[in-house]
Amino acid sequence: MLAHIRRTFANARVVRHLSTFVRSEFGKKAKPWRWVMTGVAGTSLTMVALYSGMRPRGVLAATLLDNKDWMSSPITDPKEMEKNPDLMRIKMEMMIMDIQRVFCRALEAEEDGKKFQVDKWSRKEGGGGITCVLQDGRVFEKAGVNISVVTGNLPQQAVQQMKSRGKTLSGKNLPFFATGISSVIHPRNPNVPTVHFNYRYFEVTDEEGKKHWWFGGGTDLTPYYLDDADVEHFHKTLKQACDKHSTSYYPDFKKWCDSYFLIPHRGETRGVGGIFFDDLEDGDPEDLFKFVSDCAAAVTPSYLPLVKKNKDKAYGYKDRRWQLLRRGRYVEFNLIYDRGTKFGLNTPGARYESILMSLPLNASWEYCHKPEPGSEEARLTEVLQNPRDWV
Amino acid sequence: MLAHIRRTFANARVVRHLSTFVRSEFGKKAKPWRWVMTGVAGTSLTMVALYSGMRPRGVLAATLLDNKDWMSSPITDPKEMEKNPDLMRIKMEMMIMDIQRVFCRALEAEEDGKKFQVDKWSRKEGGGGITCVLQDGRVFEKAGVNISVVTGNLPQQAVQQMKSRGKTLSGKNLPFFATGISSVIHPRNPNVPTVHFNYRYFEVTDEEGKKHWWFGGGTDLTPYYLDDADVEHFHKTLKQACDKHSTSYYPDFKKWCDSYFLIPHRGETRGVGGIFFDDLEDGDPEDLFKFVSDCAAAVTPSYLPLVKKNKDKAYGYKDRRWQLLRRGRYVEFNLIYDRGTKFGLNTPGARYESILMSLPLNASWEYCHKPEPGSEEARLTEVLQNPRDWV
Repeated sequence: MLAHIRRTFANARVVRHLSTFVRSEFGKKAKPWRWVMTGVAGTSLTMVALYSGMRPRGVLAATLLDNKDWMSSPITDPKEMEKNPDLMRIKMEMMIMDIQRVFCRALEAEEDGKKFQVDKWSRKEGGGGITCVLQDGRVFEKAGVNISVVTGNLPQQAVQQMKSRGKTLSGKNLPFFATGISSVIHPRNPNVPTVHFNYRYFEVTDEEGKKHWWFGGGTDLTPYYLDDADVEHFHKTLKQACDKHSTSYYPDFKKWCDSYFLIPHRGETRGVGGIFFDDLEDGDPEDLFKFVSDCAAAVTPSYLPLVKKNKDKAYGYKDRRWQLLRRGRYVEFNLIYDRGTKFGLNTPGARYESILMSLPLNASWEYCHKPEPGSEEARLTEVLQNPRDWV
Repeated sequence: MLAHIRRTFANARVVRHLSTFVRSEFGKKAKPWRWVMTGVAGTSLTMVALYSGMRPRGVLAATLLDNKDWMSSPITDPKEMEKNPDLMRIKMEMMIMDIQRVFCRALEAEEDGKKFQVDKWSRKEGGGGITCVLQDGRVFEKAGVNISVVTGNLPQQAVQQMKSRGKTLSGKNLPFFATGISSVIHPRNPNVPTVHFNYRYFEVTDEEGKKHWWFGGGTDLTPYYLDDADVEHFHKTLKQACDKHSTSYYPDFKKWCDSYFLIPHRGETRGVGGIFFDDLEDGDPEDLFKFVSDCAAAVTPSYLPLVKKNKDKAYGYKDRRWQLLRRGRYVEFNLIYDRGTKFGLNTPGARYESILMSLPLNASWEYCHKPEPGSEEARLTEVLQNPRDWV
């Protein structure tokens, strides 16, 4: 496939030339993406320029060939990408590929040489994905970063679920397209929080041929021990990304996050929140795409400092035990309530390993466990029962 | 409460007399219950006679007072029990109380002195339960045996679920009564299988005042390593209990068990099955009650020999790791698919600790784990993917 694309260019020199051109021409314009440049290979710039809509025709395929740093080649045939570079589907795929690369490389840099295992998979019903997992590392007990580009007919359970959210989808045979990035990082040290993020784009065509589309996403933090400064930094970084687009986004999506990640039977949230939104469909799709891209780009700067700061802190048996119990709650939320997990498992031919990579390597359930009053464990629990404003 | 009942009898001597009378009078007739006598206190005989419908009036309260071996006093007010000893609700409660006692005492006898923690709880919406948990023992890593007697209005999700099973329940306000025993035993040694059983009785009154009732239940085994003789003994014991009532029961309910405990996304069953049935409502309720009682009574003889035989076998790190992975699958089934767990968590005011006591103390998830070809782990997996006939 790549060989074929390669033939569309005279030779590799043309490819290199084109991509150098993009770098010099559009480097300065790509301001919202400036953080991307920090500590990552310069080739990402090409990508950034491309999916920001500042790309001259022909460069897309060049970039696909040139960028040696991506986790894998794209899921969609590069020929198709080259033909339709302005399609939202294509722009989303390129955006999430780049986010996956940046985030995975940043995490690898914290490990002692351990690298992500990269599995590129395809689905016979249509589409596929790239699943990157780093398991049993020194710093990360289990880190999963998955992107997928999936097409097919919407499963009935998903239709019901979307209708219950107020969508008017007429017809039984509903072709859909879904692309997104989804990640859960479970560090080993209980002083480093778990992070989750997911940014996605959805299209459904109804019986009358009407195309519905929407964006969804969010980033949220699950600490085992509460370091107020860490949580504040995390929320502040997300707020900054939101504020560039609308000052109502952060307060609205922060609240939505607290209510989405509630574990009703326990009366506590999964973690200390972040942002969460779904069904974003009002307004200019380009504006929404830029918002979603900015949120996704905020993941690394919101989380990496917490890893660097806490990964080598001392901890003991009590801390580990508490971390495993909290991970049990994480499993409860994901398997019982999480919409994404349900959608995934209900989608025929879904790759369950990519969906369930969100589960921790280890988790515990103790009957009637209660944190000791006045303890750090009790302080966290109190915050989970009564979500707090962090910025 | 007990004091009040006690006053209805002249003195404790009358109580003792009555219960001695029942023992001598009905001891021989209670043949289906003979196993109950094995290794348990003689007082259980009184119970057996009582809930087998061979009880002279007045003895019920006597038994409640007399039996010192139960895990706790009954959930229903003994006065109410005394007034309506022939009500199916009451007979079920007494049956499951006795099963709980027999099974818990048998498990305790395998431990080195460790006893069940007994929590009697009530639910403000109506009813309550007795939860017995033995955690972090030498033989049992987590063992839970719960009984409950619950009343209220059927949650809408439960109504939908029952309708999807073909029940015709008219009306929105549907008072229900549910009683049952539910248990999951997770032993520490990977050579000892996990066992689960659940026997329940349900009543719903619809808008037109019509009372619907049904029985449900089952017992199933989840080994970590396959010992064919153990699985055969387990299935044979269940079959014997079924065959006394109908020779179609075991084959039908064995098949039902294999399909109920399927983990669809993995294409494998949770374990090697056993029996499972639901919505048993055709025929004489007394006959069905006797069938359900016999199945419940078969739990201890089907499982205890496996504990005794394997609990002291040597095992290593590889075995433990495999056991934890399989426990992860157990968690997946229970949280994603199990009807009982869903019903429990959807019931307002439910005690989630009693529902989630089924989860293991420890569980693991490894990304893309595959057993080594030709290994014992692969042999088990093969059977889970292709359920086998064991008797």
